[in-house]
Amino acid sequence: MPMSTTPAEGYAERVRASFAAQRIMATIGASLAHVAPGAVHIVLPVRPDLGQQHGFVHAGVVATIADSACGYAAFTLMPEGVGVLSIEYKINLLAPADGERLLARARVVRAGRNVSVCQADVVAQAGGDEKLVAVMTATMMTVRDRPEIVG
Amino acid sequence: MPMSTTPAEGYAERVRASFAAQRIMATIGASLAHVAPGAVHIVLPVRPDLGQQHGFVHAGVVATIADSACGYAAFTLMPEGVGVLSIEYKINLLAPADGERLLARARVVRAGRNVSVCQADVVAQAGGDEKLVAVMTATMMTVRDRPEIVG
Amino acid sequence: MPMSTTPAEGYAERVRASFAAQRIMATIGASLAHVAPGAVHIVLPVRPDLGQQHGFVHAGVVATIADSACGYAAFTLMPEGVGVLSIEYKINLLAPADGERLLARARVVRAGRNVSVCQADVVAQAGGDEKLVAVMTATMMTVRDRPEIVG
Amino acid sequence: MPMSTTPAEGYAERVRASFAAQRIMATIGASLAHVAPGAVHIVLPVRPDLGQQHGFVHAGVVATIADSACGYAAFTLMPEGVGVLSIEYKINLLAPADGERLLARARVVRAGRNVSVCQADVVAQAGGDEKLVAVMTATMMTVRDRPEIVG
Repeated sequence: MPMSTTPAEGYAERVRASFAAQRIMATIGASLAHVAPGAVHIVLPVRPDLGQQHGFVHAGVVATIADSACGYAAFTLMPEGVGVLSIEYKINLLAPADGERLLARARVVRAGRNVSVCQADVVAQAGGDEKLVAVMTATMMTVRDRPEIVG
Repeated sequence: MPMSTTPAEGYAERVRASFAAQRIMATIGASLAHVAPGAVHIVLPVRPDLGQQHGFVHAGVVATIADSACGYAAFTLMPEGVGVLSIEYKINLLAPADGERLLARARVVRAGRNVSVCQADVVAQAGGDEKLVAVMTATMMTVRDRPEIVG
Repeated sequence: MPMSTTPAEGYAERVRASFAAQRIMATIGASLAHVAPGAVHIVLPVRPDLGQQHGFVHAGVVATIADSACGYAAFTLMPEGVGVLSIEYKINLLAPADGERLLARARVVRAGRNVSVCQADVVAQAGGDEKLVAVMTATMMTVRDRPEIVG
Repeated sequence: MPMSTTPAEGYAERVRASFAAQRIMATIGASLAHVAPGAVHIVLPVRPDLGQQHGFVHAGVVATIADSACGYAAFTLMPEGVGVLSIEYKINLLAPADGERLLARARVVRAGRNVSVCQADVVAQAGGDEKLVAVMTATMMTVRDRPEIVG
């Protein structure tokens, strides 16, 4: 990671407050599992009502937790008072998303003033084992000077 | 579109049956709006419980309907008895996803025996107007000879 | 296209000057075929020394002309005195890149102050026919206040 | 890496033979730096005639070596007698590609019978230091039963 930046004070609280405001996370049952400088993990218990046609968790739901994990990983390195928005992401689905729970682990690969790039792995965990089910690369924007877009 | 293929008989019924089995669609409130050879549209009324931290529909939810629209667009051109799975997709978020409803319009750009490629636009509609909020390119796989993966 | 912007005076000359400075274009033999507000085309005669292992034009070369076409499409809508850089792109290869020449046709789908998004189709032409060989989506950044990054 | 596969005998020779047939590699001056099961590195000395408008190596050229490194990483785990083709890739450009040489390091993240997924980092090296300039995720297809597409 090419960042020398020390995270701004209070970064973890800002991530937790913003995550709590993402109502989709409560809707699907996801929660924050880890918040550190440049790295955020989100966990999602597998539920039938999140499924695609064969009963696996839908690729869009897998992307939902991976995208938020990437966004908040970038957000940990942003200053206070700004917002974070996803510009774009790409996800490869490597194996069926099933098991007991999914865990999205995101890390910053480039922290820029305006544009940050993150990568995430999503694993499915069951009975102590885990398998890699998806990889994401995401581009995040720092939003400044827009008071309605903070967090 | 480089496909000369006539869709196999019953394609629309197979799309509708598979869509009905995607429980995530009921969870978020999405429904099929259009099914034609090589083109599928999905509509999603905007709801607060699908939101990200600023109240817009979460990018992962936008991707959920765009990915399913792409998958079913490809599925309309597949033979009976096979399954469709997303290999990967990339989405760019162009504007906040708000308004009354989102509409994902997907079309096939390459229909192959094993691999198909689709593109989708997602628009936000409100008061008779619409704005483009996202574009997706997705790669889909035809799954053969796996009886548990049909539809 | 959601842009109302009129291009700034001299946009075509700035595109041509910047293209001429891209030495890779001379190396592979590519040239500008069309420059209009929000749309740029680049043509590349097929040559054996651009080939991958089966003799088709290498996917990286296909991406080279598509990426530059996207960048310059975005650049036509930027003000004078700024630079354009690719943040990221994604390309799907749909058919072997062969024939007499490749033509990359790019258009802006979102023109933002800092971030623009473009899409391109690449076709292979031979004997009056053309086939679609690739589609790209690319994200471009407007670079301001860096005198060494203009064009 | 979820592969248990031992590479088929002669994999390194097949990679080297196929790479030698990629005429674009000679055109730009790239060479193989490392070939191991599931991992291939390609090195490219920086040259002015590979540049974009500001003198950095063009993003398409960066992608050319990353894409080939990904393809050959996947190819090391394929059986004899098949071909490898890029279906799609996505690249993020993180920093200007300059310095003395670029090195693309690719690894397989999923080795499937028909579809494999690889990731690559591209670094720029100068005076003993290196910086990360790009990350790629690529999807590769195993081509069977087409005698004209081997390697």
